[in-house]
Amino acid sequence: MKNVTTTDPRDGRTTELEIRETSAEEVRRLVDAAERAASEVRSAPRSWRAGLLRAIADELDASRAELTGAAESETGLTPARLDGEVTRTVFQFRLFAEAVEEGSYLEAAIDHAAETPTGPAPDLRRMLVPIGPVAVFGASNFPFAFSVPGGDTASALAAGNPVIAKAHPAHPLTSLRAFEAMQRALERHGAPSGLLGLVFGQDAGASLVTEPGVRAVGFTGSARTGRLLMDLASRRPAPIPFYGELSSINPVIVSPAAAAVRGAQIAQGLFASVTGSAGQLCTKPGLAFIPRDADALVDALVAQARDAGAQPMLSAGILSAFTDTRSELERLPGMRDLAMRPPLTSEGAHVVPGLLEIDVADFTEAVAEETFGPSIVLVRYGDAGELREAMRRVPGSLTATLHIEQHDDLDLTDLLPDLEALAGRVVFNGYPTGVRVAWAQHHGGPWPATNTIHTSVGVTAMRRFLRPMAWQDAPEHLLPVEVRDGQVDLPRRVDGVLTLPAAR
Amino acid sequence: MKNVTTTDPRDGRTTELEIRETSAEEVRRLVDAAERAASEVRSAPRSWRAGLLRAIADELDASRAELTGAAESETGLTPARLDGEVTRTVFQFRLFAEAVEEGSYLEAAIDHAAETPTGPAPDLRRMLVPIGPVAVFGASNFPFAFSVPGGDTASALAAGNPVIAKAHPAHPLTSLRAFEAMQRALERHGAPSGLLGLVFGQDAGASLVTEPGVRAVGFTGSARTGRLLMDLASRRPAPIPFYGELSSINPVIVSPAAAAVRGAQIAQGLFASVTGSAGQLCTKPGLAFIPRDADALVDALVAQARDAGAQPMLSAGILSAFTDTRSELERLPGMRDLAMRPPLTSEGAHVVPGLLEIDVADFTEAVAEETFGPSIVLVRYGDAGELREAMRRVPGSLTATLHIEQHDDLDLTDLLPDLEALAGRVVFNGYPTGVRVAWAQHHGGPWPATNTIHTSVGVTAMRRFLRPMAWQDAPEHLLPVEVRDGQVDLPRRVDGVLTLPAAR
Repeated sequence: MKNVTTTDPRDGRTTELEIRETSAEEVRRLVDAAERAASEVRSAPRSWRAGLLRAIADELDASRAELTGAAESETGLTPARLDGEVTRTVFQFRLFAEAVEEGSYLEAAIDHAAETPTGPAPDLRRMLVPIGPVAVFGASNFPFAFSVPGGDTASALAAGNPVIAKAHPAHPLTSLRAFEAMQRALERHGAPSGLLGLVFGQDAGASLVTEPGVRAVGFTGSARTGRLLMDLASRRPAPIPFYGELSSINPVIVSPAAAAVRGAQIAQGLFASVTGSAGQLCTKPGLAFIPRDADALVDALVAQARDAGAQPMLSAGILSAFTDTRSELERLPGMRDLAMRPPLTSEGAHVVPGLLEIDVADFTEAVAEETFGPSIVLVRYGDAGELREAMRRVPGSLTATLHIEQHDDLDLTDLLPDLEALAGRVVFNGYPTGVRVAWAQHHGGPWPATNTIHTSVGVTAMRRFLRPMAWQDAPEHLLPVEVRDGQVDLPRRVDGVLTLPAAR
Repeated sequence: MKNVTTTDPRDGRTTELEIRETSAEEVRRLVDAAERAASEVRSAPRSWRAGLLRAIADELDASRAELTGAAESETGLTPARLDGEVTRTVFQFRLFAEAVEEGSYLEAAIDHAAETPTGPAPDLRRMLVPIGPVAVFGASNFPFAFSVPGGDTASALAAGNPVIAKAHPAHPLTSLRAFEAMQRALERHGAPSGLLGLVFGQDAGASLVTEPGVRAVGFTGSARTGRLLMDLASRRPAPIPFYGELSSINPVIVSPAAAAVRGAQIAQGLFASVTGSAGQLCTKPGLAFIPRDADALVDALVAQARDAGAQPMLSAGILSAFTDTRSELERLPGMRDLAMRPPLTSEGAHVVPGLLEIDVADFTEAVAEETFGPSIVLVRYGDAGELREAMRRVPGSLTATLHIEQHDDLDLTDLLPDLEALAGRVVFNGYPTGVRVAWAQHHGGPWPATNTIHTSVGVTAMRRFLRPMAWQDAPEHLLPVEVRDGQVDLPRRVDGVLTLPAAR
């Protein structure tokens, strides 16, 4: 197998690492080890697993300097951004530890044997159980929070599953360092090392998806690669769930009143949201619907776009995809380039923000093509009718954002349901970037944002890696403790009534 | 388009009905109407929807004689069995009405704006919202409970979605009668008629899966047809979730102690489970692992198999698939025919039970091929090691059943986890047929039992037809009532803490 290489996007220098790509045989051995680990941890109490998640959090936190150092040279992201991402990643593990302890995620339920309208019915106990080894494909743009130690890994481990991650080719060394930190935590906590695996190379990734022992896939990345892996997962002799977070245009709508009252402020916030992390965020707004007469807001955006410095992109592949898509957009009928700067600066892999504009009359689905990088298309509209009409051509997105005033003329009666139909999160008077990790978060949305009805951020992300199990007339001692009679330490439904545990 | 025909399986007579197959254009119009209906009912309170479900239950109950009459002539199932199925179907709608009122299914959660370890965080509100129009493909073996008015339809409607059902070709008239009864209920309750549609014909079914406005598919039927539709759903430009309940062998294990203590009783219960509804149940046990020395149990089964009367099968297609699969099984190396009766009697479409036997040493995956009809393969084993080894070759199933004694020598330490790994429901000292409709039910399992992590029976079946939605910093009046501040009528999570509504 070939050795793995890493490239510093700031200067384009490529280095060969002392890491070989993982062979199909090695993948198989990792999956076998993962299956054994699944058996070993199956009967461990939830408190043990919460402890494991906290041990991982601690170890990542303690390895912060090493992790951000590796990531800086592989992603070109700023130290501050990377440091914040480690904090987020650590927090995420701790939140999942709380959720595991709390226990609601198990959806435990008991229906005692009873006479029912359909006759005598047996005793039933239901709860969710771990699905089995999970393959995780992280994204290039979040080397921690959506990569090896990211939300997919954390939620899959929290649910009780082994994880085998595929190292992203844009940050193999960061992947390895995060994996090593997590393995130290596993060892310290007495967990089997097979609970976490790491593979390198595209072929190893494909092997992972087709290995019979792998029971689910979490993926964050492009729609193209996502669709390939999704097809691979569904064409297996035994298909498995594929959870893809793929592509999102994240429309923003600014009402005439909001543009009039807060135009300058919105221009500033929107520009920051478009250009943060060089626009390489899945929630970056790619389309903004701006009133036709809101020239002040647009002028403020143009001024920022003309002054902005260049930023490095994560990888050569992302860079060329960005410049290609921008060129395609620029050639669309009616499209105007407001910033009037070529995307690439003389510094090579550094790009400057793109600011394009089109009238709503010329708005087509082609305008809503995701540009992964610092670029946005302003769509100028006249009235709510034009807006609604245009919304029909906006593809499914992770987010949709509305800027409105308390007393606003923009009629939301139909517009808000339309936005809710196309997005998984509706943001009011804010910006879609910056995804809070919380119980009430949803990071998902209709195709092509994702391909499922689940989230990849927030506590409920665990549901993806669990499957329901029912026991009928089981002897008490053969049941998991969570569905035995008597006092338990988690919320559950007993004979249809949701009950909370006694105060702890 | 062709007219639809119906066949009475008791005498094989085919009649042409005054129903035309549905054209692609008609399917499109139904989907359009469904999308409009979805908008119309979106903001109706949960109590309205609970009322609708109860109105449907009442109308089905009132139409009982008409429904069972149609089904008897189309399925050959007994009047008692069909009457019980209507009762179950009516109960199912009423249970979903309770679940809608109770409100937990929305998974409502609020995280107020807060300072967090990752910095200041916005206000988030999350709950599940209807996914949109759902296509339902019912099964031949339950003309009510898993067909037009069945669990998929009831759970999709309960979740707030329009449903377009495809009439099963084995009971088109029953489908129409059930649809008409439900439409009367919709009208009585003031619901838009587009909330429920019905199509006839295979082409119409395929159109339904590919129509852009359809957002999910519920399917109960064969693995072959299921896989075809599943591929159709995932190859759409915008793929949609496909929930298939497909094929299940439902292994039963009898321990040596259970065979010794309750052999005769188990023989009777098992035989009834294999032959009820002519074995045409997705939970029919198709494999029983019986101790090598439990000859009394096996003799009791043989006696019943030799005496049993003939039963009509649901359709000519199912009949020929049954006899074909039985013949294939009989030809497997080491297979013995214990009943020694040809499957078909002189009455034509009537079959007698099949009872095959094989030693565990000869047990292969081919032995575990589902035979949809009254037939079971007894696998004779010696010890727990042989059992565990054989379990590795048993495919994913809806159920697995264990007959054990309180003080049993059979070591369950590894065997029970193995059974849990391959099934969605583990039954103790009972039989897998007869699926209780309840909160704690799970009717699903690893491939090929189903292709997802969801259930098609029980309250949680609703989750399939909901998608999460989050609102960030939304003005109170633009939020659904369920996630506004203050008192609400449902359980929800506020700042991480699950809270119950004030006593009602």
